[in-house]
Amino acid sequence: MNAEIIAIGSELLTPYRLDTNSLYLTDELNKLGIRVIHKAVVGDSRNEMRSSFRHALDRADLIIASGGLGPTDDDLTRETVADLLGRKLSLNEEILRGIQERFRRFARTMPEINARQAMVPQGAVVLPNPRGTAPGLWIEPEGHIVILLPGPPAELKGLFESEVRARLARHGSSERLYTRDLRITGLPESEVEQRVRPLYEMYPDTETTILASPTGIQLHPRVWSRDAAQAEKLLEEIVSRMALALGEHLYSTKGESLEEVVARELLENRATIAVAESCTGGMLAERLTNIPGSSTYFLGGVVCYSNDLKTSLVNVPPDLIESKGAVSSEVALALADGIRKFTGATLGIGVTGIAGPGGGTPEKPVGLVHIGISDERGPRERAFRFPGDRERIRTQATQTALDTVRRHFLFPAHGRA
Amino acid sequence: MNAEIIAIGSELLTPYRLDTNSLYLTDELNKLGIRVIHKAVVGDSRNEMRSSFRHALDRADLIIASGGLGPTDDDLTRETVADLLGRKLSLNEEILRGIQERFRRFARTMPEINARQAMVPQGAVVLPNPRGTAPGLWIEPEGHIVILLPGPPAELKGLFESEVRARLARHGSSERLYTRDLRITGLPESEVEQRVRPLYEMYPDTETTILASPTGIQLHPRVWSRDAAQAEKLLEEIVSRMALALGEHLYSTKGESLEEVVARELLENRATIAVAESCTGGMLAERLTNIPGSSTYFLGGVVCYSNDLKTSLVNVPPDLIESKGAVSSEVALALADGIRKFTGATLGIGVTGIAGPGGGTPEKPVGLVHIGISDERGPRERAFRFPGDRERIRTQATQTALDTVRRHFLFPAHGRA
Repeated sequence: MNAEIIAIGSELLTPYRLDTNSLYLTDELNKLGIRVIHKAVVGDSRNEMRSSFRHALDRADLIIASGGLGPTDDDLTRETVADLLGRKLSLNEEILRGIQERFRRFARTMPEINARQAMVPQGAVVLPNPRGTAPGLWIEPEGHIVILLPGPPAELKGLFESEVRARLARHGSSERLYTRDLRITGLPESEVEQRVRPLYEMYPDTETTILASPTGIQLHPRVWSRDAAQAEKLLEEIVSRMALALGEHLYSTKGESLEEVVARELLENRATIAVAESCTGGMLAERLTNIPGSSTYFLGGVVCYSNDLKTSLVNVPPDLIESKGAVSSEVALALADGIRKFTGATLGIGVTGIAGPGGGTPEKPVGLVHIGISDERGPRERAFRFPGDRERIRTQATQTALDTVRRHFLFPAHGRA
Repeated sequence: MNAEIIAIGSELLTPYRLDTNSLYLTDELNKLGIRVIHKAVVGDSRNEMRSSFRHALDRADLIIASGGLGPTDDDLTRETVADLLGRKLSLNEEILRGIQERFRRFARTMPEINARQAMVPQGAVVLPNPRGTAPGLWIEPEGHIVILLPGPPAELKGLFESEVRARLARHGSSERLYTRDLRITGLPESEVEQRVRPLYEMYPDTETTILASPTGIQLHPRVWSRDAAQAEKLLEEIVSRMALALGEHLYSTKGESLEEVVARELLENRATIAVAESCTGGMLAERLTNIPGSSTYFLGGVVCYSNDLKTSLVNVPPDLIESKGAVSSEVALALADGIRKFTGATLGIGVTGIAGPGGGTPEKPVGLVHIGISDERGPRERAFRFPGDRERIRTQATQTALDTVRRHFLFPAHGRA
């Protein structure tokens, strides 16, 4: 079975809004063994919508549309689809009572226009929507399934889970999509691609999507199969070959974020951490603390933007800043060691660099970042040169600082004699 | 003139990727007076692609497609479009030399398959692409314009700017889209909607998109017009009426972020700031420092997660934490005042709260956040209760802390006798 997703709403044709429902729907459909072959976005226009549905019926077995089920004149999905399929609309008293009841609960009278939401095309199955006034509709024109869902993501997801998934499972094939989510950091996309490309040919039945972002690369190998055990075995094999090819740059095969991996390592090693940041301006602390329960391992951090604060908060000697500069190996080491000693944490991290756009010099260009890490054996440090704008440089510096912590646990003797 | 945007690539039909090029293209097209009436996403399949282009030719004057111009077997846009339009492909020697030259520059030999990228449909205008190997193509089948662009956003944007914009301007109508970008914080979407809705009827030729996010609400009023002066005047009028309706909750009419507005206020008032954060974990410092030049006003911050650090970093008395709890008005006041005194900043901000998911009690539930602000006249404080998950609570707390700074400058005597 294959599917087309149609997102309806003129606001989705402005520069401000993307249809994000289709990512959720695609994921759910794939798990049911249904491939998405086409997506369309169409405005609140009867003609455009009619033409989109007509073409979709030519292409796909299943059409899922979102939006245009509201009470206003702009909401034309119900009428347009009923008309295209040659089905009369009639008032469903039960839905009407439900909507009236909903308004009463919020101590309001139902505006007359909301009665439109109780109109149902002949033969359609009504999918009750406890989260809003517009119910979903399930229609089966010859050889097809057409599902109309409300646009607000919470209502769409709620309806999919409570009403659509189980119904579709009865129609779907026994073929399912199986997938993995590998996360890589410290390698450019082209290098990841080159390392795993030979596997594409070894496993022609697997499709792999590669996704690049400032925090790193994601690899999503996918297998369509009727046999769950076989698919899982195949994916295990591919993932272990990918792991070999990617080495220590692979930090998760389960779609975890780097801060989740670092959190796990800190917890398992009963270690605590504290950070002293300059150019990342709090982003490192923010990422370490966006994990629930982070207070177990994260003691605290300082954002010492001014040189005075580097001294007063973390005891970086003023003459060191004077002689080596605030952006230097020596200051990164002093920040890492200083915050560790001040807080009593197992690990201290120090980050200093030039995020730009101003402040660069030929010797210390924009993008230069020193990252220090300190444990009870003392501090060590590495310098990096990150490309891109301020936001990108700060993101990469933060990611690399987190990766420094991960590697500390991966190679406990790393950088030691 | 109206347009359809087609995004090509099977990866755009997975749960992992959205076509984001269309937002950029829509913005650019609207500025040229071209409306986008339909968007489609199609995989790397000759049949699907052919059907999409055929339907698009029925609907739209202009078709802009992105993707599928690479060198591999999956890249079928060139061939499929040439075939659909009945145009022969032939090798363009100049493009071929350009691609070979590009490979030489990176000290590599051009793989044979890349020669495909030098194939040009009869009568097409070649749009040179200095950022990649695939040139863009401009074709004018009867009554239409079809533009094929590479998928990578940097290449697509570069080509649009250097080759497409000026050419389209000659074809576009004299009607243009004029728009404003209003930013609101501290009001829910429904309240914003209710306050501005009467204006929708007063200005029927204006469309307004409302966009909600955890940091607040955006309003985008838009006017299509042939008369720039008239459109700008109309928008000024609408914006000033919206400003009246939204009061002090409106923080920008120019699409600025709240941290940009706060940065401007701090600079104009020659003020400096320092922050002491608990539950926001560095997010407040991170946002204050993501503005270039923030070192002028941002002195530094501390993320004092543990109670010990609240005392050792910011001098919060241990017995205050003991008697009132770490999440309390008193501790927020002490954090704000402590960091101000420690750093010598004009303003100190203190944030303490319960971001969850754990740690809530009936008296101090998840989502409770105290925000303190201190100046030379001493500290003051407000408590908030934010809905949502950890990420949402932290984002709203940070946004509200920034808004507290903005309001400090807006109402200098706010909260004073």
